[in-house]
Amino acid sequence: MPRSSYQSPYKALKLATKSNAASEATTQLLIDLVNRSLNDLEGYGRETLIPVNVPGKEYFAFQRGNKMSRPVSGGLFDLELCKEHLHDFASGTYQRMARRSLEKFLYTLAMSFCCANDMRTSGDKKTPATFFECFVANIFSRELGVLPTRKAEVLNLDMQATLPTDYLFNLGPNKAKIHLPVKISTRERVVQVWAHQRVLDGVYGVGRFQGILVVITETNLVKGGKVTEVCLPDQWKVYQMFISQLKRVYYLDLPIKYAKLSETYPFLQVKSFAEFFDEKDRLISAGLE
Amino acid sequence: MPRSSYQSPYKALKLATKSNAASEATTQLLIDLVNRSLNDLEGYGRETLIPVNVPGKEYFAFQRGNKMSRPVSGGLFDLELCKEHLHDFASGTYQRMARRSLEKFLYTLAMSFCCANDMRTSGDKKTPATFFECFVANIFSRELGVLPTRKAEVLNLDMQATLPTDYLFNLGPNKAKIHLPVKISTRERVVQVWAHQRVLDGVYGVGRFQGILVVITETNLVKGGKVTEVCLPDQWKVYQMFISQLKRVYYLDLPIKYAKLSETYPFLQVKSFAEFFDEKDRLISAGLE
Repeated sequence: MPRSSYQSPYKALKLATKSNAASEATTQLLIDLVNRSLNDLEGYGRETLIPVNVPGKEYFAFQRGNKMSRPVSGGLFDLELCKEHLHDFASGTYQRMARRSLEKFLYTLAMSFCCANDMRTSGDKKTPATFFECFVANIFSRELGVLPTRKAEVLNLDMQATLPTDYLFNLGPNKAKIHLPVKISTRERVVQVWAHQRVLDGVYGVGRFQGILVVITETNLVKGGKVTEVCLPDQWKVYQMFISQLKRVYYLDLPIKYAKLSETYPFLQVKSFAEFFDEKDRLISAGLE
Repeated sequence: MPRSSYQSPYKALKLATKSNAASEATTQLLIDLVNRSLNDLEGYGRETLIPVNVPGKEYFAFQRGNKMSRPVSGGLFDLELCKEHLHDFASGTYQRMARRSLEKFLYTLAMSFCCANDMRTSGDKKTPATFFECFVANIFSRELGVLPTRKAEVLNLDMQATLPTDYLFNLGPNKAKIHLPVKISTRERVVQVWAHQRVLDGVYGVGRFQGILVVITETNLVKGGKVTEVCLPDQWKVYQMFISQLKRVYYLDLPIKYAKLSETYPFLQVKSFAEFFDEKDRLISAGLE
């Protein structure tokens, strides 16, 4: 399928998310782009990759000619399940799926577009990142019942400034406010997330915004078709101890090294994204934990 | 001149800087690489660029065939002056130059290698960045009389961790300790600098390390041969107010928008790098300001 069949709905998705991330129009554009991606991906081969130090996970890449997609988690990518339940994403009933199916569904929704884009383009990182931002903004704004903003006012006695930020959700007085950074993967840029949380703590008071980071995966494809996960848990501990405190990190493909951070001080809660739907009511009622 | 004539001294420079950034061997390798670069650059044409919203500055790019270098500040790049004084860099007497000549000399030393590398390669950002790190580490370690480290120990009751950092200089008891991040330009990654400063403040106590950021330039080449400076002074104010406090930011090609930050709260001191040599004694005696 030619590139142009994505361009128009992709542009429409960006505009729709900006005007109302929770709208039916935004949801339908997400579904439309995923559907096109799933259809394209059915036509490609799958090349098995070799996981290195990634216990319990299998990876493959979509492949045609000398084009190859990013690594895909074989245990999570489920094309048939995703197609079957696309209408549940429209209606919002997808959360009722069993936990493992919900994990597969969310992962496949996000990764199908990224992989289909990999097969059409070369080295394009921005399009998948923007798509994933729209995807997560749609889910959160539908779940929370409020629309996000992307800038924060900074009070200063001598100037008026607004700071461009990740998504911010204001749930109203005496409810949580949410700071929602969204990343395909974190790599060395992740310290930004703690730094922005620190700015919000400074401007609005510590704990006013709950920082929730959503990430797809930390896989890295290296020479010889090998897949590793790039994780720096000791650095994350230091950021959580000395810069600011994130409330949650949710992964669609959860690295075991980060999941273990919840077991030792400073107890950073890194979880599968599917858990958000179970605990969102608790996260919303600020101050109850 | 073929690429290979740079590879061997460049590799040697990285090793020499790691083992002793202040050594004569390191200094000589820097001079050798600059000398090769200046000789190469003499053979290229110069294409005039159009400054947009950059009052008082002129820019050109080195050019041959369809290869073009990054933008070069016409008022600061002085090939003859640089060649003439290269031996002063070896002896350490270069600081005695008149202020404007010193600014030209430092700028030309750093930019000559970057531009010569642009003309040999495509999209290589790492080599110039590493060269500039070695260059600044050499200058600081010679001026301060101590060698830097690149990791900080983090004290934690339950684990032992070291954090990879930018250059750190420990001048001894009751003297300043210096945290020295070095960048070709800052763009959106700059919040990392304040975040790392915040970690050092948390681990060692606020004010124990003085953060000094050294940057070449903020120029950006856009379509039609136009040059802009990418500056976000309001964001820098917010970082300085709410994340941590940098002591100095030094530029080789100082953007006027950042220079003005020293005039209003929070009074971030952004200066020409040449000023470091005038004020280093004051910076070293911690607590006297």
